[in-house]
Amino acid sequence: MARAHWGCCPWLVLLCACAWGHPKAVDVGGQDVRNCSINPPYLPVTVVNTTVSLAALRQQMQTQNLSAYIIPDTDAHMNEYISQRDERRAWITGFTGSAGTAVVTMKKAAVWTDSRYWTQAERQMDCNWELHKEVGTTPIVTWLLTEIPAGERVGFDPFLLSIDTWESYDLALQGSDRHLVSITTNLVDLVWGSERPPVSNQPIYALQEAFTGSTWQEKVSGVRSQMQKHQKAPTAILLSALEETAWLFNLRASDIPYNPFFYSYALLTDSSIRLFANKSRFSSETLTYLNSSCTGPMCVQIEDYSQVRDSIQAYALGDVRIWIGTSYTTYGIYEVIPKEKLVTDTYSPVMITKAVKNSKEQALLKASHVRDAVAVIRYLVWLEKNVPKGTVDEFSGAELVDKFRGEEQFSSGPSFETISASGLNAALPHYSPTRELNRKLSSDEMYLLDSGGQYWDGTTDITRTVHWGTPSAFQKEAYTRVLIGNIDLSMLIFPAATSGRMVEAFARRALWDVGLNYGHGTGHGIGNFLCVHEWPVGFQSNNIVMAKGMFTSIEPGYYKDGEFGIRLEDVALVIEAKTKYPGSYLTFEVVSFVPYDRNLIDVSLLSPEHLQYLNRYYQTIREKVGPELQKRQLLEEFQWLQQHTEPLSARAPDPASWASVLVVSTLAILDWSV
Amino acid sequence: MARAHWGCCPWLVLLCACAWGHPKAVDVGGQDVRNCSINPPYLPVTVVNTTVSLAALRQQMQTQNLSAYIIPDTDAHMNEYISQRDERRAWITGFTGSAGTAVVTMKKAAVWTDSRYWTQAERQMDCNWELHKEVGTTPIVTWLLTEIPAGERVGFDPFLLSIDTWESYDLALQGSDRHLVSITTNLVDLVWGSERPPVSNQPIYALQEAFTGSTWQEKVSGVRSQMQKHQKAPTAILLSALEETAWLFNLRASDIPYNPFFYSYALLTDSSIRLFANKSRFSSETLTYLNSSCTGPMCVQIEDYSQVRDSIQAYALGDVRIWIGTSYTTYGIYEVIPKEKLVTDTYSPVMITKAVKNSKEQALLKASHVRDAVAVIRYLVWLEKNVPKGTVDEFSGAELVDKFRGEEQFSSGPSFETISASGLNAALPHYSPTRELNRKLSSDEMYLLDSGGQYWDGTTDITRTVHWGTPSAFQKEAYTRVLIGNIDLSMLIFPAATSGRMVEAFARRALWDVGLNYGHGTGHGIGNFLCVHEWPVGFQSNNIVMAKGMFTSIEPGYYKDGEFGIRLEDVALVIEAKTKYPGSYLTFEVVSFVPYDRNLIDVSLLSPEHLQYLNRYYQTIREKVGPELQKRQLLEEFQWLQQHTEPLSARAPDPASWASVLVVSTLAILDWSV
Repeated sequence: MARAHWGCCPWLVLLCACAWGHPKAVDVGGQDVRNCSINPPYLPVTVVNTTVSLAALRQQMQTQNLSAYIIPDTDAHMNEYISQRDERRAWITGFTGSAGTAVVTMKKAAVWTDSRYWTQAERQMDCNWELHKEVGTTPIVTWLLTEIPAGERVGFDPFLLSIDTWESYDLALQGSDRHLVSITTNLVDLVWGSERPPVSNQPIYALQEAFTGSTWQEKVSGVRSQMQKHQKAPTAILLSALEETAWLFNLRASDIPYNPFFYSYALLTDSSIRLFANKSRFSSETLTYLNSSCTGPMCVQIEDYSQVRDSIQAYALGDVRIWIGTSYTTYGIYEVIPKEKLVTDTYSPVMITKAVKNSKEQALLKASHVRDAVAVIRYLVWLEKNVPKGTVDEFSGAELVDKFRGEEQFSSGPSFETISASGLNAALPHYSPTRELNRKLSSDEMYLLDSGGQYWDGTTDITRTVHWGTPSAFQKEAYTRVLIGNIDLSMLIFPAATSGRMVEAFARRALWDVGLNYGHGTGHGIGNFLCVHEWPVGFQSNNIVMAKGMFTSIEPGYYKDGEFGIRLEDVALVIEAKTKYPGSYLTFEVVSFVPYDRNLIDVSLLSPEHLQYLNRYYQTIREKVGPELQKRQLLEEFQWLQQHTEPLSARAPDPASWASVLVVSTLAILDWSV
Repeated sequence: MARAHWGCCPWLVLLCACAWGHPKAVDVGGQDVRNCSINPPYLPVTVVNTTVSLAALRQQMQTQNLSAYIIPDTDAHMNEYISQRDERRAWITGFTGSAGTAVVTMKKAAVWTDSRYWTQAERQMDCNWELHKEVGTTPIVTWLLTEIPAGERVGFDPFLLSIDTWESYDLALQGSDRHLVSITTNLVDLVWGSERPPVSNQPIYALQEAFTGSTWQEKVSGVRSQMQKHQKAPTAILLSALEETAWLFNLRASDIPYNPFFYSYALLTDSSIRLFANKSRFSSETLTYLNSSCTGPMCVQIEDYSQVRDSIQAYALGDVRIWIGTSYTTYGIYEVIPKEKLVTDTYSPVMITKAVKNSKEQALLKASHVRDAVAVIRYLVWLEKNVPKGTVDEFSGAELVDKFRGEEQFSSGPSFETISASGLNAALPHYSPTRELNRKLSSDEMYLLDSGGQYWDGTTDITRTVHWGTPSAFQKEAYTRVLIGNIDLSMLIFPAATSGRMVEAFARRALWDVGLNYGHGTGHGIGNFLCVHEWPVGFQSNNIVMAKGMFTSIEPGYYKDGEFGIRLEDVALVIEAKTKYPGSYLTFEVVSFVPYDRNLIDVSLLSPEHLQYLNRYYQTIREKVGPELQKRQLLEEFQWLQQHTEPLSARAPDPASWASVLVVSTLAILDWSV
């Protein structure tokens, strides 16, 4: 799914807000927004009264001698999704959008968010709050400099700022005589008090061995050997990202929506393994699995989650060097380690190692995609029958596809909130229907479904766009060009260690050719029952280079504001390419197994190579998914699959493009005759 | 030309050294290298005795209380080519390669250079010098830490280190208790004394108005308006790159090989223009042209070149902010400006403005390329007649093409040292023949010519690869795939403000498809009688985004070690693309007008689109260059041109690829019939 590209990952918000420009606010539920310029102000019922909590927060600020307090939209692990108890910005402001920073001074309170959320913010915030339509630290600091006098203090929770974000605040404030003050007790939490949702107490469980690529002991040994080989001789690795601890120990839980993680940190040395988590959540079997009763180099000592900062600080007193990945480490940890004792990389060795899946992990991930295809195909078949009746809406559709996935073996829920968008809604960069606000599906418009599942063996993410009636020529052209982009990138052969950024334009060229484009990224890593956006694999500029064994989504799109949206997303494995001349080259093997919509493909735009690729892909789908459908007695679905994977060939030319069609058919015939 | 990608520009050396790996040292003149491990050492006659000068340098170091002294390969303006008087590293070491840093301690002397130069260094350096086969500051600092004790001082000339290079030395030495000491008097110069080549005293002249895009007054006003609009309100712009002063004032000279520049700096404020240069080199006409007799805001006050550091330091005492481009500013200037008074960008506004050529500059540049094509075609026709006689060698060939260019109107010499390389020599990343060392041209092997001219109206740079006999199937395939890469990138349509790095893979895909690639960049900016590599335009990661009016080379290649080399380079103008749907899109218009070698094109590999593009390009060549050849009565050349620009069409299929050829011919026929 492409959602993260336009918002969920902190480092992408700015990029995507810019890339998308300022799309027209298409609001499915009308524009019932606040009006603070009249007296008394007009406040819709959706607004939250924040007067009391703001007063309480200012009291806490006074206690700390602060003139301003920053409230970001993050948690202590830079998670893409945060749990309710971490939704401090939403709680104090009333504004529940997933991106936005609040700052409170003694006199004012303000929120900075991007264009996707402006209407939502005006519907949810009362007049205590200014809305600033910008993002990034610069406008916030500019505002702070006018609002608070020199010599005063700006407070923040160091566990909620990444090192980079802290640095940008620090740099922007340098020389201004305003002082950035790290306060480890979160002031919003003090105000929130007992109303704040509690910590999850769901068990932290070990994945069955059938679903893991290696044992935790093997993983620990591998990471230690990287530490030993490192030029700067780190004595420990500190892991802050929840996907790191989940992966390393093969442990899972459900602390975060959509991501099977548990709040934790780990400190790994040559002689010890310390896992900071809530011990009461481990069963005795899991404690045994972790060898937690001993203290040797292969025993996981569990220490309390809340002790991590003190423990790291104490460890850093010794003659040590702590290796961290700066992308996922917060200032709260960073500030207690002397700079000369830090060994920094953008990503920790665990993130880098995890990015490459071994053959068992690859097989697991592929298997989950076969079952996922069954669920999606069941849904598409159901839609084909029910949409013409006029009884399906975006929300009930989303619920149904989630239900079908839930019925698949090893299912553990959706991997993100299903994007089920009909007609113009599919052009919105950040849309999910609700029970209250949704649109009916219709044979007269396109429908975009971007959804995925968490399974014990793998995470899936697939987007298909369909039309059950008569699409316009432009819709068919746009769809086909998106498809060509998907194919061009999927079949590209490129040198090992090429960065995704260098090749992602192949997914755009067919669109560029006629002056079309899309404003989001082209893909993200994905893996085995972790988060759906498994960075740093992908096609973004901060992603690591491609290597055999990585999985990435490939998801070009096209969006026509106020009309329709198209996205075609598959997950692909990076494999070795066999080239005519010897060399170390890679290509992709697509492991999503749902056919595209034939009704939207303009075959005359496809080259013989595209047709050949597509028909080979369809053959693979038949081989992988066909038997699975038969096994389940899903015969209607099996028929549908056969129909939708019939080999495509160039059709009778339409007068305007007879020349190219003639060529295509010539080659197609030649090709079949081989 | 691609040379800079593998060596001339300091920031590319490392990249390219890595990309090329360690090619086998193919030495056309044998391996007569020093042997310091025997007693007495064996020293070939090419070695320079450095004992006396080294002793004198160490005496100077002692005077300054230095334990080590760094001698880089740069000048004070980060020029790609440096004048003889700046070749300090070459003079003190004997090693004349264009890339390499020397460090001298009281006991040892060492040179760090990349694989292209190892043999040359062993042939030119005596046994006073260690050769280190690495590049970058890290290995130098690692060595320094073992060679000099804590507490001691490492000297350097601050005018020879870019800000970035200084920072990397500084960072690497931090905490080591070795102190980096900036010494403005160059110690090698003190030893070199009166033997050091003098400063150029050639006149600095104004370009005729016919050859400039705008007057210097218009340019100064444009730059000032950028200063006024700048958020950080700089009070002055400091220009350190020689191409900046040459462009801004429309002045030229010949202080640097191949680049028509003069040693200078400029400090531009709202109320004054200060040009630091050698006043005696301006004629009275030029002084009048510069309004140098007054002191108003539109009068150029000429101050002595040697005063620049003191003058900047004095200016920086005021309430000022100085805007610099860090890429071309040395530490010698940087260290005298307090950090809070600096406004820094990677490139100065002059570099950014200069990158986009206005319509007059575009017309001038195109005109120079038509005449340049005449010179290259004359040479190719001459080669076709003379190579079979066995009388042509690489060096005499290079001389002849330089001579033909010299006969063209407005010629001002070659724009770089002509790369004239036959057979296996063309696979060497850094090859130019000499009178003594060269290879005979033959109908049995490929020949690569990468050359360009400086003309008052424009700079040219073109590479053609030819074969007069029977190329192998592999040579034809590789050539055709390089050609396809050139065409695929040249005809690409892409959104405005796309960075070159994001699209350069289109020039590689046809090679990647079969496991081939090239190890250098894909192109560089070029312009009107400035340097041949006019950064920051191009396809490198540090280049600025593409905009209408920029010129860049497009130069994919393929190199088979020990056998042959192929490169096809054209200069292209970035123009607006007309797309089917409205949008801001760009594409390229090729302005190099020399046909490719038909003898090396395997038509069966070309798509109908490639053929169509190629034939349209050939038609343009006929229209542009044909009349010019006729006007000059170059009738043989005119005939050759007609022959070599005959429309290409798919040929009789060879059995192996008859299918695709059939299609190509079908389309080709259809295309002609439209």
